[in-house]
Amino acid sequence: MDNQLTTELKERYGIVFHDVNLLEQAFTHSSYVNEHRYLKLSDNERLEFLGDAVLELLVSQYLYKQFPEMPEGKLTKMRAAIVREDSLSKFAKECHFDQYILLGKGEENSGGRTRPALLCDLFEAFLGALFLDQKVDAVKKFIAEVIFPKIDAGAFSHEMDHKTHLQEVLQRQGDVHIDYRLVNEEGPAHDRIFFVEVFVNEKMIGTGQGKSKKLAEQDAAERALKKNPE
Amino acid sequence: MDNQLTTELKERYGIVFHDVNLLEQAFTHSSYVNEHRYLKLSDNERLEFLGDAVLELLVSQYLYKQFPEMPEGKLTKMRAAIVREDSLSKFAKECHFDQYILLGKGEENSGGRTRPALLCDLFEAFLGALFLDQKVDAVKKFIAEVIFPKIDAGAFSHEMDHKTHLQEVLQRQGDVHIDYRLVNEEGPAHDRIFFVEVFVNEKMIGTGQGKSKKLAEQDAAERALKKNPE
Repeated sequence: MDNQLTTELKERYGIVFHDVNLLEQAFTHSSYVNEHRYLKLSDNERLEFLGDAVLELLVSQYLYKQFPEMPEGKLTKMRAAIVREDSLSKFAKECHFDQYILLGKGEENSGGRTRPALLCDLFEAFLGALFLDQKVDAVKKFIAEVIFPKIDAGAFSHEMDHKTHLQEVLQRQGDVHIDYRLVNEEGPAHDRIFFVEVFVNEKMIGTGQGKSKKLAEQDAAERALKKNPE
Repeated sequence: MDNQLTTELKERYGIVFHDVNLLEQAFTHSSYVNEHRYLKLSDNERLEFLGDAVLELLVSQYLYKQFPEMPEGKLTKMRAAIVREDSLSKFAKECHFDQYILLGKGEENSGGRTRPALLCDLFEAFLGALFLDQKVDAVKKFIAEVIFPKIDAGAFSHEMDHKTHLQEVLQRQGDVHIDYRLVNEEGPAHDRIFFVEVFVNEKMIGTGQGKSKKLAEQDAAERALKKNPE
């Protein structure tokens, strides 16, 4: 196995595999297996199958707990945004996994090392290998470093409307009363602008404006979030 | 909570909820919540979100272990066949869950109690509630009674070709050597029939015929499986 990979995993994430073969398999692309048949290697596809499911559960569990008021439809959208190819391939790169994957020459020459689908599969395969090697809590610890902080920082919150997001953030600190108040309207009927203030437990935390009351409320929530990031 | 449900869960599956509210929530459809707003109930949709992911992982883990030689593509197909609406709604009925779901009148009158989508969600919500109440091993124990035996009995194996299936079944008993031998060909070139025998560790366990060698092999594997069910 690549020594640099094992060193990096240990130093960055405190991960040491018991069964190094599993780690090796996670970083072996089918194109490499096909070009080195005599080595009788296994590629990472079955591990990817498993890792995909482990990730789905851990992300679901995290969202369920972090957003106790979020309806199922929004949870599902957010989960989809987190586990989609494009997100996972970025995580793989951040972990430098792209440097260590074993590829066949054809795959290498056609740019496989930067291909999102390949990196996404690699990331899932790594999770699958870690799951088999050290059970689910080790995987949870790893993605608590790599993924969860990004969820908390709102990286996937474009899937949420701002009012819901603000509610979620505030309610983490306990029971709060959130109130949107229309404070002004300006302009002619066909081009009216609405001004709204948002209050939490009677304290004003943001103002917003928009062409409808609803839009003004969203604007106020968005600005309040910017002033009070989670 | 419906006493009959708690009794049945205890007697059939040895399941006793610590937090009965979770069980109650799993059996509360949104239509019931909407018709009884004054009760301030929660419906089962968020639990379904969680249960869906728990199920996906447990099924994946089981397939991964049970079919050590199955390629990722087939594992994925089989998993999809197991967790699809139509399968899960049948499991819900087998567990008599349809008898206990709380529905609004409109939903009840329009036949909601027998609607596969509703029963599928209910099944997943129950798994989600069990997961929150008693962790993943309790869910595993439950689906090891309700789902895994059906996988072993080949209920989802139409997703698998017969040769792969036979190999999987035989290899559970240890290392085996499986061998397909062409024993005869008959008929003119444009309408030829091939006769094949399948051997396991030099013992003949099935014969098959078909318009190609490949079809004859599949036929032999299918017949061998019928003679030697798992």
